[in-house]
Amino acid sequence: MLSEAIGATGEEIMFSSNDTPAEEFTYAEQLGAIINLDDITHIDFLEKTIGYIPETISCRYNPGGLFKISNDIMDNPGDAKYGMTTEQLFEAFKILKGKGAKEFGIHAFLASNTVTNEYYPMLAKVLFEVAVKLKKETGVHIKFINLSGGIGIPYTPDQEPNDIRMIGDGVRRVYEEVLVPEGMGDVAIYTELGRFMMGPYGCMVTKAIHQKSTHKEYIGVDACAVNLMRPAMYGAYHHITVMGKEKKPCDHRYDIVGSLCENNDKFAIDRMMPKIDIGDLLVIHDTGAHGFAMGYNYNGKLKSAELLLKEDGTVQLIRRAETPADYFATFDCFEIGSKLSK
Amino acid sequence: MLSEAIGATGEEIMFSSNDTPAEEFTYAEQLGAIINLDDITHIDFLEKTIGYIPETISCRYNPGGLFKISNDIMDNPGDAKYGMTTEQLFEAFKILKGKGAKEFGIHAFLASNTVTNEYYPMLAKVLFEVAVKLKKETGVHIKFINLSGGIGIPYTPDQEPNDIRMIGDGVRRVYEEVLVPEGMGDVAIYTELGRFMMGPYGCMVTKAIHQKSTHKEYIGVDACAVNLMRPAMYGAYHHITVMGKEKKPCDHRYDIVGSLCENNDKFAIDRMMPKIDIGDLLVIHDTGAHGFAMGYNYNGKLKSAELLLKEDGTVQLIRRAETPADYFATFDCFEIGSKLSK
Repeated sequence: MLSEAIGATGEEIMFSSNDTPAEEFTYAEQLGAIINLDDITHIDFLEKTIGYIPETISCRYNPGGLFKISNDIMDNPGDAKYGMTTEQLFEAFKILKGKGAKEFGIHAFLASNTVTNEYYPMLAKVLFEVAVKLKKETGVHIKFINLSGGIGIPYTPDQEPNDIRMIGDGVRRVYEEVLVPEGMGDVAIYTELGRFMMGPYGCMVTKAIHQKSTHKEYIGVDACAVNLMRPAMYGAYHHITVMGKEKKPCDHRYDIVGSLCENNDKFAIDRMMPKIDIGDLLVIHDTGAHGFAMGYNYNGKLKSAELLLKEDGTVQLIRRAETPADYFATFDCFEIGSKLSK
Repeated sequence: MLSEAIGATGEEIMFSSNDTPAEEFTYAEQLGAIINLDDITHIDFLEKTIGYIPETISCRYNPGGLFKISNDIMDNPGDAKYGMTTEQLFEAFKILKGKGAKEFGIHAFLASNTVTNEYYPMLAKVLFEVAVKLKKETGVHIKFINLSGGIGIPYTPDQEPNDIRMIGDGVRRVYEEVLVPEGMGDVAIYTELGRFMMGPYGCMVTKAIHQKSTHKEYIGVDACAVNLMRPAMYGAYHHITVMGKEKKPCDHRYDIVGSLCENNDKFAIDRMMPKIDIGDLLVIHDTGAHGFAMGYNYNGKLKSAELLLKEDGTVQLIRRAETPADYFATFDCFEIGSKLSK
């Protein structure tokens, strides 16, 4: 719906999903989007749902096992619910070809938020080699390979960020080494670098409204996990700075907490910070991805507005704050609810 | 707002919170609700916000340390952001008395979801003894003690449920042992047994829409963590049965998964279940508390309706399902968004 609203059409849209409801395949087909099948059983399911197999089709691959770089375990694809096994991928391409598919894509996501320039070229090598085998064994034309996401961002200030040019160069070298000699120099490369593109360019600004000294030292802020759930859900680190105190020594230890009735509602635990005073503005960094979109309304807390800081220094509202009427909207068909939802 | 909508007024409402924004204290005061102060600094904050200290006031207590029954650690209050230390509680009562408060309450929540009849009486003993000391030392009148929540429910079928009459009896015995001899037989007891009252009496019904055999065996259902987040956030166990197969042997091992692009979106991992077929209805038990209220809209997934099954067997819609317009509502002030939010 968002893609359509911003004017993207047809194969500009790639629809990746898993455990897909029939109505989502129907909608993707109506848009003319490229459909990425998560499972071999989705071939029949898609055909029954939309009545045919599109000429362009993609399959998601999951080689299983652990994904390692040198001796580092990057992630555990064998434990992920996504994608087809190697055998299923080959079988799926044969079935899809038999059903009239002409242009094929491959998609895989094997590790999340990697902060190393090696991951993406290594993933590319795995997929390119599979693509060569798929072409040889099934005779299909591989139109594109979607390397998906996984190029991460440095959430901690001491991490070395990814070098996207070096990563691109690495992928190009593997492309020329594996695909080009097999006459596959026409394969398009797709990416899904949402976190890399968005994560560092959003931040959450929140005000210190309470200071509490009990069994620990707490700073209470006017945001909570409703606005940013990653620390609560994953124990994720988000760097926090205090406006105007960026150069002050971090000689105070605080838990930075929100107001939810949920003890995991803490943006930082035992974090060394400059001395924080009531009214200080705290900047919680790298909330441009998996931030607002992952928000909830626990305890009836409402989500904030979102503002765009433009290059010329002006600020534009790009999402209004929620109101109680939004929160109670699904009661609008009832007598009590109709008062609350207005 | 909900309390007001259902006709609760004044001291029928108790407002407990932490890291409280000023506007929430203002709203609680307008309702005439009993205000429960989470921190000693909230005395000044409340007084500045509403202009005075109410005659009836409550303080939340956190003794710190670990809360143990026999040798079992029940929970870790010393790590919780809530409440005042013992010293602060006594100090707070003196300050509040000096500012004109006449009727006092105490509140504490020391352990979550206990499934033992011992917890609540033991908590009561801690609070009753503190109440006696508070009365002696500060001369205030204790009007009520709010034992809060913590009486849990058995999420697994082999757990012995709490016996609420035995728990009540246990609290009464401690009441008669500690409070009555001190002339405090007029202290009211409040509880906040949301999970106990609601948890077991809600369930989520979802349909098996996909079956997937890759590196594990998966059943994909038409619900996801959007409808129930506890397994994703806490790895919480929710019992799952298959309608019509309640007595079949549990001889198949499945991951029961939703469709989010988030690998923790699994209602069960390696769960032994009867053989599940596409179209089967799965009942996910004990979702009456921390279920819908903790839902989110990740990946743009919409929340379901809620239905009330009545004693006479009829079913009533008590919340309608979300629509895309609900999801896009906060874009309604923009050109693109106004299309999506209608």
